[in-house]
Amino acid sequence: MSDPVLVNVFRGRQVESRHHGAVAVLDADGEVLLALGDIDRPVFPRSAVKAIQALPLIESGAADRFGLTSAELALACSSHSGEQRHTDAAASMLAKSGHDFTCLECGAHAPMAAEAAADLLRRGIDPTAIHNNCSGKHAGFVCLSTALDVDVAGYVGPDHPVQREVKAALEDLTGVAHTDAIRGTDGCSIPTYAVPLRSLALAFARYGTGQGLGSARAEAAERLRRAVAANPFMIAGTGRLDTRLTELFGERLFLKTGAEGVYCAALPEIGLGLAVKCEDGTKRAAEVILAALVARFLPLDTAGEAALQPLVRPALTNWRGIEVGSLAPADALAS
Amino acid sequence: MSDPVLVNVFRGRQVESRHHGAVAVLDADGEVLLALGDIDRPVFPRSAVKAIQALPLIESGAADRFGLTSAELALACSSHSGEQRHTDAAASMLAKSGHDFTCLECGAHAPMAAEAAADLLRRGIDPTAIHNNCSGKHAGFVCLSTALDVDVAGYVGPDHPVQREVKAALEDLTGVAHTDAIRGTDGCSIPTYAVPLRSLALAFARYGTGQGLGSARAEAAERLRRAVAANPFMIAGTGRLDTRLTELFGERLFLKTGAEGVYCAALPEIGLGLAVKCEDGTKRAAEVILAALVARFLPLDTAGEAALQPLVRPALTNWRGIEVGSLAPADALAS
Repeated sequence: MSDPVLVNVFRGRQVESRHHGAVAVLDADGEVLLALGDIDRPVFPRSAVKAIQALPLIESGAADRFGLTSAELALACSSHSGEQRHTDAAASMLAKSGHDFTCLECGAHAPMAAEAAADLLRRGIDPTAIHNNCSGKHAGFVCLSTALDVDVAGYVGPDHPVQREVKAALEDLTGVAHTDAIRGTDGCSIPTYAVPLRSLALAFARYGTGQGLGSARAEAAERLRRAVAANPFMIAGTGRLDTRLTELFGERLFLKTGAEGVYCAALPEIGLGLAVKCEDGTKRAAEVILAALVARFLPLDTAGEAALQPLVRPALTNWRGIEVGSLAPADALAS
Repeated sequence: MSDPVLVNVFRGRQVESRHHGAVAVLDADGEVLLALGDIDRPVFPRSAVKAIQALPLIESGAADRFGLTSAELALACSSHSGEQRHTDAAASMLAKSGHDFTCLECGAHAPMAAEAAADLLRRGIDPTAIHNNCSGKHAGFVCLSTALDVDVAGYVGPDHPVQREVKAALEDLTGVAHTDAIRGTDGCSIPTYAVPLRSLALAFARYGTGQGLGSARAEAAERLRRAVAANPFMIAGTGRLDTRLTELFGERLFLKTGAEGVYCAALPEIGLGLAVKCEDGTKRAAEVILAALVARFLPLDTAGEAALQPLVRPALTNWRGIEVGSLAPADALAS
């Protein structure tokens, strides 16, 4: 079964490209408020579940033991752009647990932010694992491993105590057994497990409300959500959608992007969780779908509506800055 | 109607993402040898038709008047990576017609080749229009405009004599009237016209065989195809698919990528033209589709088959170089 077209890409008056996708919006009781496409097909959430993967960092006491700041907790949930404040915070987290970037097992890549990448080149500095967009999450894993008093080396392995804790949190929130059969390896080398979009939306409804979670876990989730809301820059970076929407809506919206066209979000005030998979893995379409869902479900004033509009229907410009087209949600996404 | 899934993206054993698309394979008489998806829906060919857009450069006598080399003719058909040999050739074409990069109207962007872009940054040089992947085509337009003895300024406009000549060539090859209603603006600011995939495949069958073309046009097409075959680096750049396949197959395969998931190709020895549109506009999928079609239609020896295999089923590796998945043609593409 094919997922419906959710985003059209226009050039002039013609549709140039189309993006298929699936969407699940659920409350914490598992009631489905919106289902587009196949919400029972397994999806790798990739980085969209980093805030769930960070729960053991709080629950273990590691965050308090090492005195992690609110900005550092936000970074532990982030896919950051590798800007100076991001890499400084990751280095600080590692230092607090007695480590440095050489123990990171996420691999090196140039900062996602073009200006930060250019700055390294101009200064003749090679990117290291600290610039990897996942270095905050990994620094959190290193803190957790240290607090658990186990060998940090190999912390990305599926059988390492860190990844066992992380998997248990994912299983609790999604309600899905994370077996080896559904395991893949993520870009940053940790395990990622393919679970139905329905279960991811449920997990975020729980994450945003605390419903269905133990009290310590519910408190940890709230602490992480508040840390991100207080530090929008740390969850992504300059100009990125997660940062912009967190700046706009604060604690009213927790959202997180994942590679290959995934978004997960919680809307705590209305008790909903949502999960998006753009079938072709394209970021531009996943962003439009997410923005359209926020516009549809989050109660907005006129200013909020106006701020969302350019994200729901972004203009496309060419190399000379001429507007040549736009992206727009397809009919299936309209309320 | 939805186009079929043509490419699956695997992570571990699971399908992570899927790409829909359409394919047309025709001979120069218009007979359809393969149709997947809707081949009558209009598609913007974007840069995939640069070799057609370069025909007036030959036919007008401009190429001979200015003594353009075979490498420069290949560059006129290219979406180049902005490496030194590319920008040198574009500058040479402009100089031969009495101009320099300041007359280019394609806009500036950093070289597509990461190493060339990094080199500019290290040297503190801002990219100009000469680094634009379309600068060879635009240098050809400047030569044509000069040979036509008309004002070069505004050569990207749909009513400029250069674009009128280009449009006439496109209409002749595709057999489709290029009206204002189907016109969009390309990334490099020239017009691009949405025409059926069927007509694009027909155009390339004609381009590869000369069938259905006037003799001067057929000769111009052959001259451009040979120029590209003799200069594979000039059509794209280091590591790029168009360059690699042209190195492998020379005059047996003329192929050209276009933005938003388009490929067009001619297989002269068997008289076929083919056109690909990945519905979501993704390059990675368009490349797999193109490679799979070449493997299916071009008679290959064992070495050719072996060389194509990693392009038909490319491996996906993560930041540490660990193989985490692969792309593979879907069943609909299998012969």
